[in-house]
Amino acid sequence: MSDASMNPTPSPTGPAGCFITVEGIDGAGKTSHVEALAQRWITRGLEVVRTREPGGTELAEALRALVLARPMDALTEALLVFAARRDHLVRVIEPALARGAVVLCDRYTDATFAYQGGGRGFDLAVLTQLESWVQQGRQPDLTLWFDLPPAVAAARRAAARVPDRFEAEPLAFFEAVAAGYQRRFAQAGARVARLDASLTPGEVAAQIAAALEARSW
Amino acid sequence: MSDASMNPTPSPTGPAGCFITVEGIDGAGKTSHVEALAQRWITRGLEVVRTREPGGTELAEALRALVLARPMDALTEALLVFAARRDHLVRVIEPALARGAVVLCDRYTDATFAYQGGGRGFDLAVLTQLESWVQQGRQPDLTLWFDLPPAVAAARRAAARVPDRFEAEPLAFFEAVAAGYQRRFAQAGARVARLDASLTPGEVAAQIAAALEARSW
Ligand SMILES: Nc1ncnc2c1ncn2[C@@H]1O[C@H](COP(=O)(O)OP(=O)(O)O)[C@@H](O)[C@H]1O
Ligand SMILES: Nc1ncnc2c1ncn2[C@@H]1O[C@H](COP(=O)(O)OP(=O)(O)O)[C@@H](O)[C@H]1O
Ligand SMILES: [Mg+2]
Ligand SMILES: [Mg+2]
Repeated sequence: MSDASMNPTPSPTGPAGCFITVEGIDGAGKTSHVEALAQRWITRGLEVVRTREPGGTELAEALRALVLARPMDALTEALLVFAARRDHLVRVIEPALARGAVVLCDRYTDATFAYQGGGRGFDLAVLTQLESWVQQGRQPDLTLWFDLPPAVAAARRAAARVPDRFEAEPLAFFEAVAAGYQRRFAQAGARVARLDASLTPGEVAAQIAAALEARSW
Repeated sequence: MSDASMNPTPSPTGPAGCFITVEGIDGAGKTSHVEALAQRWITRGLEVVRTREPGGTELAEALRALVLARPMDALTEALLVFAARRDHLVRVIEPALARGAVVLCDRYTDATFAYQGGGRGFDLAVLTQLESWVQQGRQPDLTLWFDLPPAVAAARRAAARVPDRFEAEPLAFFEAVAAGYQRRFAQAGARVARLDASLTPGEVAAQIAAALEARSW
């Protein structure tokens, strides 16, 4: 039994049914800012699904653990990352968008182009074909790009945590990843909002708020 | 210190450096016959590497466990199977062939075309592209195809073991898998030796011996 008049859905103000991703090299500040982003819409009564890649489902988290822990061939890594993405899309992201939730995802396919493409030098044409099969056109509605010099990010990481298999890579790797993001985002158009992530947390938060207000979100 | 004259390598008679696969639906008799196959060359002093797919490396066995245990989208499944294959090829199969071992593998890509393509109805063009990326042209030198009616295989399985996620499928699934093998092998040419696997174990062993003797193996 359901009676809509007794439990009125709050009028959705903001990005209901929108897919928002945060991108940038390790230590750029993504995780630090995503919680405030979620609160912005939760307080307006929207459902917010916070998730991450690789990961976001039981299978995809198991694949994440394998990818982060073990050395492997670049093609093996690319196939595993896209397998995890497919499971995540089918089980979590698409159903959430269909019911009008805001999906906030920590990394998505841009990170694959940056890490596997830029960082590992893996064939971008193969990644583009996998993207097309797996996503069937699904792209983020907004991507917040935390851009900052790799050396600054490395200093933040060193102060903050024990590195995983990617975070343990030398600075040259992150220079290549940052270049991979730049190449990818040069073609991405209006879905990407670049943030100067080398500024203070308060300044980064203000840039995020400006990007959202520009979209009336 | 090595002195070849003190430890003479036996003259390799047989398929040194060859890649041999066994294929067919679950319950066809592959595992039952592969041990005798290995012994044939071990007794002649050849190195034999016995392995299986999905699997054959630590990573690929972890992926096998995920694929066999959990329901998943057909594309996710295909990507995981080829990721496992890539790891297996790079770490085990190619190095073994390069040092002159006989590689005996229980299932390979023909099984992907039969199970994911035939059984799950998954796009054969996608499988063909994945095969090309992952294998870079590497195909078995000989494939022993254990062909028998799916109902006969089902009766053998029922008598023998607890089914995994594939083995638990209904007969119609195995009819589709068997049709997938047939379609795949219609184009495979001389690398495939078809065995009538509905006969007695002794008769199947005789067919295998005939296929090997035809190759002077
Ligand atoms: N704008 C900032 N200025 C200085 N340090 C920051 C800033 N944003 C985040 N940090 C710190 O940098 C480290 C990495 O931040 P984190 O949010 O985990 O980055 P990411 O998720 O992009 O890897 C953390 O210790 C965090 O507190
Ligand atoms: N030619 C045969 N005739 C009758 N039973 C057989 C024959 N070959 C194998 N079996 C039995 O069928 C079952 C499945 O055989 P198995 O070798 O495990 O098949 P597969 O590895 O192809 O799934 C086992 O119990 C095995 O003993
Ligand atoms: Mg983070
Ligand atoms: Mg078997």
